[in-house]
Amino acid sequence: MKAQVLYRYDDALTAPTWVEHADVPDPKITKGSDVIVRIGGAGVCRTDLHVIEGVWRPHMDPTGTELLPLILGHENAGWIEDVGPEVENLKKGDPVIVHPKISNGTCLACRRGEDMHGDGTFPGLDSDGGYAEALVTSARNIVALPKSLNPKDVAPYSDAGLTAYRAAKKATRHLLPGQYCVVIGAGGLGHIAIQVLAAMCAAEIIVVDRSDVSLKLAEQCGAHHLVKADGDELQKVMELTAGKGAEAVLDFVGEHGTTGKGLAMTRNAGSYYVIGYGENVNVPTVDLVITEKNIIGNLVGTWAELTELMELAHRGLVQLETREFKLSEANSALRALHEGKIKGRAVLIP
Amino acid sequence: MKAQVLYRYDDALTAPTWVEHADVPDPKITKGSDVIVRIGGAGVCRTDLHVIEGVWRPHMDPTGTELLPLILGHENAGWIEDVGPEVENLKKGDPVIVHPKISNGTCLACRRGEDMHGDGTFPGLDSDGGYAEALVTSARNIVALPKSLNPKDVAPYSDAGLTAYRAAKKATRHLLPGQYCVVIGAGGLGHIAIQVLAAMCAAEIIVVDRSDVSLKLAEQCGAHHLVKADGDELQKVMELTAGKGAEAVLDFVGEHGTTGKGLAMTRNAGSYYVIGYGENVNVPTVDLVITEKNIIGNLVGTWAELTELMELAHRGLVQLETREFKLSEANSALRALHEGKIKGRAVLIP
Amino acid sequence: MKAQVLYRYDDALTAPTWVEHADVPDPKITKGSDVIVRIGGAGVCRTDLHVIEGVWRPHMDPTGTELLPLILGHENAGWIEDVGPEVENLKKGDPVIVHPKISNGTCLACRRGEDMHGDGTFPGLDSDGGYAEALVTSARNIVALPKSLNPKDVAPYSDAGLTAYRAAKKATRHLLPGQYCVVIGAGGLGHIAIQVLAAMCAAEIIVVDRSDVSLKLAEQCGAHHLVKADGDELQKVMELTAGKGAEAVLDFVGEHGTTGKGLAMTRNAGSYYVIGYGENVNVPTVDLVITEKNIIGNLVGTWAELTELMELAHRGLVQLETREFKLSEANSALRALHEGKIKGRAVLIP
Amino acid sequence: MKAQVLYRYDDALTAPTWVEHADVPDPKITKGSDVIVRIGGAGVCRTDLHVIEGVWRPHMDPTGTELLPLILGHENAGWIEDVGPEVENLKKGDPVIVHPKISNGTCLACRRGEDMHGDGTFPGLDSDGGYAEALVTSARNIVALPKSLNPKDVAPYSDAGLTAYRAAKKATRHLLPGQYCVVIGAGGLGHIAIQVLAAMCAAEIIVVDRSDVSLKLAEQCGAHHLVKADGDELQKVMELTAGKGAEAVLDFVGEHGTTGKGLAMTRNAGSYYVIGYGENVNVPTVDLVITEKNIIGNLVGTWAELTELMELAHRGLVQLETREFKLSEANSALRALHEGKIKGRAVLIP
Repeated sequence: MKAQVLYRYDDALTAPTWVEHADVPDPKITKGSDVIVRIGGAGVCRTDLHVIEGVWRPHMDPTGTELLPLILGHENAGWIEDVGPEVENLKKGDPVIVHPKISNGTCLACRRGEDMHGDGTFPGLDSDGGYAEALVTSARNIVALPKSLNPKDVAPYSDAGLTAYRAAKKATRHLLPGQYCVVIGAGGLGHIAIQVLAAMCAAEIIVVDRSDVSLKLAEQCGAHHLVKADGDELQKVMELTAGKGAEAVLDFVGEHGTTGKGLAMTRNAGSYYVIGYGENVNVPTVDLVITEKNIIGNLVGTWAELTELMELAHRGLVQLETREFKLSEANSALRALHEGKIKGRAVLIP
Repeated sequence: MKAQVLYRYDDALTAPTWVEHADVPDPKITKGSDVIVRIGGAGVCRTDLHVIEGVWRPHMDPTGTELLPLILGHENAGWIEDVGPEVENLKKGDPVIVHPKISNGTCLACRRGEDMHGDGTFPGLDSDGGYAEALVTSARNIVALPKSLNPKDVAPYSDAGLTAYRAAKKATRHLLPGQYCVVIGAGGLGHIAIQVLAAMCAAEIIVVDRSDVSLKLAEQCGAHHLVKADGDELQKVMELTAGKGAEAVLDFVGEHGTTGKGLAMTRNAGSYYVIGYGENVNVPTVDLVITEKNIIGNLVGTWAELTELMELAHRGLVQLETREFKLSEANSALRALHEGKIKGRAVLIP
Repeated sequence: MKAQVLYRYDDALTAPTWVEHADVPDPKITKGSDVIVRIGGAGVCRTDLHVIEGVWRPHMDPTGTELLPLILGHENAGWIEDVGPEVENLKKGDPVIVHPKISNGTCLACRRGEDMHGDGTFPGLDSDGGYAEALVTSARNIVALPKSLNPKDVAPYSDAGLTAYRAAKKATRHLLPGQYCVVIGAGGLGHIAIQVLAAMCAAEIIVVDRSDVSLKLAEQCGAHHLVKADGDELQKVMELTAGKGAEAVLDFVGEHGTTGKGLAMTRNAGSYYVIGYGENVNVPTVDLVITEKNIIGNLVGTWAELTELMELAHRGLVQLETREFKLSEANSALRALHEGKIKGRAVLIP
Repeated sequence: MKAQVLYRYDDALTAPTWVEHADVPDPKITKGSDVIVRIGGAGVCRTDLHVIEGVWRPHMDPTGTELLPLILGHENAGWIEDVGPEVENLKKGDPVIVHPKISNGTCLACRRGEDMHGDGTFPGLDSDGGYAEALVTSARNIVALPKSLNPKDVAPYSDAGLTAYRAAKKATRHLLPGQYCVVIGAGGLGHIAIQVLAAMCAAEIIVVDRSDVSLKLAEQCGAHHLVKADGDELQKVMELTAGKGAEAVLDFVGEHGTTGKGLAMTRNAGSYYVIGYGENVNVPTVDLVITEKNIIGNLVGTWAELTELMELAHRGLVQLETREFKLSEANSALRALHEGKIKGRAVLIP
């Protein structure tokens, strides 16, 4: 089959192309629980650029020599093509979305439902992913899609969407009427989080972004207050919240000073959620003591949470803006993303 | 001042009138934390009929001789008329709603925020209530209203609305996308609960009622599925939920067999919430063991929850249908309620 | 191999023997995830008597003709004898305990960690169990044992112990210092629950039982107050709790009137846990409303919870009293149990 | 009466004495809810040294001219001397402990039970405290003591103990058997936390400290593993936890590098609790994302939590080591604390 293969890292992202449209062996069923998915859409994510840069090399490829060549792509959806002899309830042609982690299902974390903290692999990061015509994976990370949803339209939910969903869901578990939630960054993840918040709680949603286009999108997604990140965003959020700050702050940026401002926007006893990353959280311990604030890390989401998100999508409660590229145009998609020219999420289609 | 006073119980509700429009002494400030509220609206509640019948006598008037005469009215809103010397942050003219319980604020339940489980009194049930021109109460059960809300329009929220809110809020704490909530009875409380659910979670809402008018109202309130209670309602709910039942069932009826059907509509590991009352819950222990279902009692709500509900009302996320009667027409309002002729909630106004 | 087989139901438990020590085919690996366990101990449980009586026929054998012959035994522990080709991390000779449910691992309940609410089978109830020399099951319901624990000593934890653990654990999640937990029935399950409570919370534990022997055992297990169930037990519990009742009541009896008394012993806003079964819970809805009590069903426990319980056993924080019978003496063990002559739990050994 | 008064700040703590044993006016009842407590014991806390240094000046005395003279002492216990006319349930001679915050009881935080996040004052920090013969405060921050507890023995629980209790309690709400809790620093607060953990959960407790004396104390308090903080403490904790770290880490030091090591000792998806303070938490956002760790701030505790802690003390489940000084020897006590010569907590007695 055809696939887009990464043959070498490019630390500075200066090469003219990064992946190569190559012929590779077809994926094969080797275990009873294996599943082959014919790809309908593969999301193109900033993490893919980070893989190309080698950011993940210390974690995924410590010797720097064993992982490549690698087929990228960790946001995958499509149709069942074939299943191993012990797979039940899935058959050829079923539309599916692929959870980014193949958890083993036997460790304690898996048995408690926390797939992303269990043992396992991440196709597209540490094994071949979905920038291809097909992908071999396990029945354990397959979520069946309702007929209302087309694989190419939902592929980015499997990672970007799921990450936004889990963080926003955590906040909805404690947000009450009369309280506030700040969303910093209304981009690919943030605009999903806003919709999740609007669907699952009655807090007032304040969105902070540098871009008027993103703020416009935030409003359509259900934001109640829009704050331009022009340098006075902290002051504006404090004014909107009677000088107290918000009970929850979801930071989808995590750099350019948002961590300090985000924590300052957090009300005493409230929670600051770290989703975007880049800079350090750097806060005096005495401040955490006096304010009793919480700083909450967030990592993708569980398989069950992906089914919850698909339910929201099925009912039209969250919608995703995508831009399609042919699989053969993967380099163009990656470059457009690198240059900040993608609104919503880019998706590779067959 | 003028007030509607209960002078004698009427066990069968057969008397031509139940309360008397009498002259009574003006309420007076006697403690530093006392507050006098000029009544703008007093909700007329089925519990008032139960007080007249003597249903509450064993709890509130055990000797049967000490409580009467009593001014009814436990759903009160109005404006501050006067405050005791130790009351802060409230002044004459402020619009307010009155929480139904004067909790003492010092017992452990109060200190944990669970007002209705603390020590205290219930004006309109065990001391004079709001079927009157004014009411003396404590700063502890006063909630300031935003300017957007008129006391006569919100008075029934203080008990009926708060009860519906608390039960629905409990359900929203565990309901997730892809799950179902059944509301049995879309009357005065039920139609508020539907709005609360729609605002605070993304579960699908199934409403069961015998009345087409109520089902119509339920739809306007945000119900996703309407089920006529014509004898097949259990079967229909099971069909809507893939044969499994709903993760939460809120029963606002509690009689005529709804407890058995409500529990049967509850999915394994789900929760059945008792709000309406009349019959017994009568269930084999083995069924509770095999299904691991929960049966959850519900009692009004906390002071903090009343502020949360007022926030929903202020933002238009819950709306209440009321029918106004003059204070002098209290008997007419009670009779109309007794005869099932009130849609939404009756309110006495000055 | 040898096994104790049930060939016919005995509704009144009047037959001289109930199971037959027969030669049956050896269990075989047929799926990649199958595991064969050589039985070291099989707990003898009241549920086995209920199976013999046909109590479970409506659920497990609705036509009444297909389930038998059946090898009983749902509380199993032993050593790995053989594993299917896709089983990892288990090898011949490993000591293990067998969770009572073979959950399929793919449904939403399983993926959330709620094994007992997922699809699957219960060996010993709807398929062959552990009254035998060996058992075929799935890697999914195997929990590896630490070397400190001998299979025959822990087998009853897999169902009886796990049920007690889960209910007690639920209570410990809300019990705080200064609060009370009543345990009704200090028998096979109850005496484990007392130890779990003592290990996992600082509530005061009140144990109610008719038997002085059981109360003595309760004291050794960590009970702080002992109440003889001589007719005045409700009054005594109320006296111990300043007239308010206990925040949690765990009822391991569920018959002979314990449900009514247990609910009455429950403090307002508290929770009554149903574990034992026999009679009905029969309570006026108005009582649940006025008191805001919860009635909580309980079903076995999750795989993860079995690992938690094994940790408590490994550290000596829970201990189990057992009485051993040879596999060939299964009828004697069942009869002794039926006649109330087992203290702690009976276990069949090879 | 006599009191120890702070007349001037001493930034470098170089003055020979810091407070002055002076004659000051007796405290007076001015509000209906006021209470005068005759001091039986006043804890001497590092925070008192910080007040003397002026560390709290920006928060409590922003103009630097209005707060002094100030009577120090925020850890107070004693006997009721007099009460205002609206105080119920307290009378002269009752033994009591004083919660460090006089919360107003009317704001939303107070009404939810979160006293320390409500509006109010902190005697000993922003108004006169308990380094005196008597203290005027409010009924709202009085907790009655059981007869088993002597004020001078429990005074330090009101702040130091309460802080340790609340943080440890938070951890016990999620710690399960088979999990680990690391306590960094077994000093005045830490040794209480260890006892709270031992009483309220079944996690294994690992204590890290530089001092052999403290580790010895930790063992007596219930620690299961002792780790000398000699530079290899992180490695040792990882070895004890199978290389994964602990589900909860309570850091009572917060300086000298414990924040970085404490976070590193925290298992993925676990929580790091900040109680001690001094240095910054400085962590890459990407680490919080990959590990999904939480950083949890902690501030004193609620009034209800102080009652919970007193219950643990009453039952002997937590014990406090104190060293007594006469009120007139306050400077000696402060100096001994400053020089690290206090084991446990110093208490001023009449």
